[in-house]
Amino acid sequence: MSGNFHLTILGSSSATPTSNRNPSGQYLNFIDRNILIDCGEGTQSQIRRYKLKLTKIEHIFISHLHGDHYFGLPGLLSSLHLLNQTHEVHLYCFKELKEILEQIFKYSDTYLRYRLVYHFLDPKRPEVIFEDDKIQVSSFPLKHRIACCGFIFREKPSLLSVKKDMIELYKLSPHDIVKIKNGEDFLDEEGNLVKNQHLTHAPNPLLSYAYCSDTVYDELLAEILYNVSLLYHEATFCNDQKERAEVTFHSTAEQAALIAKKAQVEQLLIGHFSSRYKDTGVFVQEAKAVFEKTFLAEEGKTFVL
Amino acid sequence: MSGNFHLTILGSSSATPTSNRNPSGQYLNFIDRNILIDCGEGTQSQIRRYKLKLTKIEHIFISHLHGDHYFGLPGLLSSLHLLNQTHEVHLYCFKELKEILEQIFKYSDTYLRYRLVYHFLDPKRPEVIFEDDKIQVSSFPLKHRIACCGFIFREKPSLLSVKKDMIELYKLSPHDIVKIKNGEDFLDEEGNLVKNQHLTHAPNPLLSYAYCSDTVYDELLAEILYNVSLLYHEATFCNDQKERAEVTFHSTAEQAALIAKKAQVEQLLIGHFSSRYKDTGVFVQEAKAVFEKTFLAEEGKTFVL
Repeated sequence: MSGNFHLTILGSSSATPTSNRNPSGQYLNFIDRNILIDCGEGTQSQIRRYKLKLTKIEHIFISHLHGDHYFGLPGLLSSLHLLNQTHEVHLYCFKELKEILEQIFKYSDTYLRYRLVYHFLDPKRPEVIFEDDKIQVSSFPLKHRIACCGFIFREKPSLLSVKKDMIELYKLSPHDIVKIKNGEDFLDEEGNLVKNQHLTHAPNPLLSYAYCSDTVYDELLAEILYNVSLLYHEATFCNDQKERAEVTFHSTAEQAALIAKKAQVEQLLIGHFSSRYKDTGVFVQEAKAVFEKTFLAEEGKTFVL
Repeated sequence: MSGNFHLTILGSSSATPTSNRNPSGQYLNFIDRNILIDCGEGTQSQIRRYKLKLTKIEHIFISHLHGDHYFGLPGLLSSLHLLNQTHEVHLYCFKELKEILEQIFKYSDTYLRYRLVYHFLDPKRPEVIFEDDKIQVSSFPLKHRIACCGFIFREKPSLLSVKKDMIELYKLSPHDIVKIKNGEDFLDEEGNLVKNQHLTHAPNPLLSYAYCSDTVYDELLAEILYNVSLLYHEATFCNDQKERAEVTFHSTAEQAALIAKKAQVEQLLIGHFSSRYKDTGVFVQEAKAVFEKTFLAEEGKTFVL
């Protein structure tokens, strides 16, 4: 794999699976972290089908407790157990999921061989739920029929890369270099201030990915989603079912595009399509009329940033 | 469909699914009753794939609470709800499954649109768990790591068919005919006893199907399984893993065949293959050496009796 962001769609359907669409699931490799976002029924089989590594998953994010977003989780966790998984798996979810999983494992007399670490989501307010040296993940509430969270995955600024010719020109010491990598300017022997930008390569823009699983149209999201590199926003219906979307707390393709436009994101990915639409072409057509850089979530498709 | 027995294999794998094998699930159409036996993850998608009718299922039998036998059930029951299922669905399972399902539905705020009727299995002794005018279903305990039941589906004797020429010869009245259909002999005008066999067509042999999901080799089963038309018996391993089979309370292909032979069944079907075997040919080869009429459970294959 090259690139810092590979997102593979495991499922693009809402509620009921269809003959060619699976319920929600996305496999994200983000700056070498292996992440699963939602886990509808059949997710582990999809991961195998697309030659991704089940046992490499370190973080699992479950947006809410409608079955099409987590019914594949008990099976996936059991398979990790049977495959002798040893490293910790971190699960970010509502606290009720722990009760459900513990009951399932109790009655099957299963004691997981690996450590499953729960991190409970706050359904009321945004918060940082994971952070290491390279990435930061936040959750934020979505407006749906039951408690539901979206997630934002952000690349963190890394150390700057110092230009070789500058090291020679200014005879930079290892100590100087560390300071410059961290963004400091440099004072040369004659007391001249050399700006950091002059000494370092321009950093790559930082990647970010936002995931809005199930939500009614909510303009307030635009602020949280501002300027992300890629936004996944559900589009369960097209505008012909706008009222139904509102009643069921879902969005239409146009509404997803309006959010993308308002939030000034770079690209939009739509999914969670109702089984009533046999052809998903209508979704992308509707969304593109508002936001040109729209793409369709399709099983097995990988998006690279 | 013609025939009184159509059994379609939805999954033939044990524990973890493989790229081409699903966990346990069988769709049985038995004298026009639509029955699902076990429901591993992905079962609803398999039912769609093989063009079977999800909404026609009336009875669901779950042998035990290892995930590869029921992790597809919450999704299947939810889909029936979303598909506006109206008729009752009868679920035969251990009582703990009710707790699991009720918790899942509670947290997704789901109130099923149809009536789900629970019938709890007795893990200790055989019992009749369903009976109507055409079929009878019994459960019986299997020896596995956790409580587990097998099932026997039996066709009930139907009314006999009276030969047309006998109706004319003996001038049988509608009243006589009803008695003869029920197996009675006939006393003619001259006081001669005419045996029922002389008046009626020989009935078709009664069909029966036994399902032994997960079990260690257990000779005592032969008595319960005596003479069934078709026996499904798990064969998780081949004899190269005989010790492992014993430790994990599973059977080998040879052991399944020994049970079939001892029980004098007509045909044997084996399944629940461990993912360590890429090629299932070895199972049938091993079993056939003991019991010739052995068949392999394979996804999508339908057995007609």
